[in-house]
Amino acid sequence: MLSRAITAAAVAISLGVVAVAAHCAPASPLPLVIREQGSFAIGGTVRTAPGSFDNNAPTSAGQSIHADHLYAFYQMPENPRRLPIVMLHGAYQSGRSWETTPDGREGFQTIFLRRNFSTYLVDQPRRGRAGNSSIATTIEPVPNDQLFFDQFRLGTWPNFFEGVQFDPRPETLDQFFRSVTPNTGPYDATIISAAMAALLAKTGPAILFTHSQGGEPGWLTAIQSANVKAIVAFEPGSGFVFPKGEVPPAMPSAAGTLRPVEIAPAEFAKLTRIPIVIYYGDNIPTEPTSERGKDNWRVRLAMAKLWVAAVNRDGGDARLVHLPDIGIRGNTHFMMSDLNNVQIADQVSAFLSEKHLD
Amino acid sequence: MLSRAITAAAVAISLGVVAVAAHCAPASPLPLVIREQGSFAIGGTVRTAPGSFDNNAPTSAGQSIHADHLYAFYQMPENPRRLPIVMLHGAYQSGRSWETTPDGREGFQTIFLRRNFSTYLVDQPRRGRAGNSSIATTIEPVPNDQLFFDQFRLGTWPNFFEGVQFDPRPETLDQFFRSVTPNTGPYDATIISAAMAALLAKTGPAILFTHSQGGEPGWLTAIQSANVKAIVAFEPGSGFVFPKGEVPPAMPSAAGTLRPVEIAPAEFAKLTRIPIVIYYGDNIPTEPTSERGKDNWRVRLAMAKLWVAAVNRDGGDARLVHLPDIGIRGNTHFMMSDLNNVQIADQVSAFLSEKHLD
Repeated sequence: MLSRAITAAAVAISLGVVAVAAHCAPASPLPLVIREQGSFAIGGTVRTAPGSFDNNAPTSAGQSIHADHLYAFYQMPENPRRLPIVMLHGAYQSGRSWETTPDGREGFQTIFLRRNFSTYLVDQPRRGRAGNSSIATTIEPVPNDQLFFDQFRLGTWPNFFEGVQFDPRPETLDQFFRSVTPNTGPYDATIISAAMAALLAKTGPAILFTHSQGGEPGWLTAIQSANVKAIVAFEPGSGFVFPKGEVPPAMPSAAGTLRPVEIAPAEFAKLTRIPIVIYYGDNIPTEPTSERGKDNWRVRLAMAKLWVAAVNRDGGDARLVHLPDIGIRGNTHFMMSDLNNVQIADQVSAFLSEKHLD
Repeated sequence: MLSRAITAAAVAISLGVVAVAAHCAPASPLPLVIREQGSFAIGGTVRTAPGSFDNNAPTSAGQSIHADHLYAFYQMPENPRRLPIVMLHGAYQSGRSWETTPDGREGFQTIFLRRNFSTYLVDQPRRGRAGNSSIATTIEPVPNDQLFFDQFRLGTWPNFFEGVQFDPRPETLDQFFRSVTPNTGPYDATIISAAMAALLAKTGPAILFTHSQGGEPGWLTAIQSANVKAIVAFEPGSGFVFPKGEVPPAMPSAAGTLRPVEIAPAEFAKLTRIPIVIYYGDNIPTEPTSERGKDNWRVRLAMAKLWVAAVNRDGGDARLVHLPDIGIRGNTHFMMSDLNNVQIADQVSAFLSEKHLD
């Protein structure tokens, strides 16, 4: 792993080469050997309507609905490492985030399987294949593509950022936009973390990857479940939890105000017991700007820095890696599927190795 | 394949033995060797709102939404057979239908992968991970578990049918109910078949498996795409298409009236060019009954028989297998995940072998 990381760092000097090489590499150099794969639901609730069920004239009376569970698809390699990796997606996404990249290469599901980790890909409660919700919702076909293009830092619509780690072909952008899938019930981080804790009870000790909006339920899962042995958070976007008395001020931005979340110090303390690493990509300004898509991330990066400092002040082991600081440029909000996602995976592998988690 | 089918038929004489053996067998006798796996979206539409997009004060104006595509997860074994299998789920379901069974054994995804078929599992447009819909909808938490129990022929709630091929443990029923996921837009068989035809254009010649409500978009896909080389339909539940002039009367039942669908004779003729097999399970009466869950299938089985006759009358190659007629008893509406699903897979393998499709 160490030599791999060094190679990646060396190659990163010439970013153009990395992008071309990653894009043209054959998809599957070696076959995958999988000991077991499958899927299941876990967590959730059962709601039963009052009355008696009439088999031959059914109404809601006396009937139940199973809802608010998560869905997980798992694969175990032939000789798995000690800790599996559980992957939790972000807003508007599903487990599909970690599968094939928009430009058709292997995503973290298969990359980490090749590195001999068992993987669990989650569709959180009220999303994707875990669609049954205990609370009603209305889904409108709201057009958001251009907002997403800016907010996920592919560029400033309609122009890609120079050197962005995203293949500019129209068919790639089409795949990216079609990875979007709506909430099928109200978003609720506590419902998600409850189901995630149930999942961790089933998997046993595991490493948790979170993306974007998945950050907050990720922290809450680690607070609830001692089976979370590390968190790798890719651009957590909201829900930075601080202990009462140490909550920083809210941070206004051109994309709205980012508010920290207050929790009990005893809960926060649980986040100081595991290694945590947070990655942010490129094109995030440090000074306020009227560019909404960028300014959204200025405050998130700033809040994440305060959060890491708070964890470490209380004896924790948190680290923030702003990729441009280590010479890795061009990453979007979806670094796990960017053109240099193998390089990102190498960073993660090096971290897991350093923390003796592999 | 032939010896396998004969063995299965012989073992079927003692059903109790089959069920126990299937249930207690180790989940994964041999590792899977996968050459390539991944996922993508295909088909669908793009809708753009009028106006100009303002990057820093975004509204709907000038923005687009990608919607009405399907999602597919595929796996290719090391030495795949000539034709991949595309699997399309039924109502309230997703590609998850073909994954792990509710009692935790391998489903058709992995069983047919072990038999060296490449597999493509679909989430149809407006379902599961293909949730973006061009038309709005409201999702209510309607309790339907007991209706499903009856209608999917597990039994007559709260009692399982005697000898049913479904593990009666509560945790299995819990998994079964949690495989349900709602429509995220209006159900539209033509939207589904359009996306399916786009998928078949990508896969090339393939075998199509359909379940339940997937039957109708399955027929429509084969009409639109010459790449559908065979259809294996598990309990098609609606949308039996007949050529103009040969449409049978609607069939009333205790669960409502089943109406055939009229199509142009030239379209129907396309269904006479490929081998088709339809399977129905057990506990379907031949005479009308007030038992809603059963009577629902009486008319569907009857309509399917008329449909097969119509296809064959026009020179086609369709077959209906009512499993009890060949000594296979206890199957529910979900035979691909029933306790004897390996036996069902053997039936399918024998059919594919007979038609030189493997």
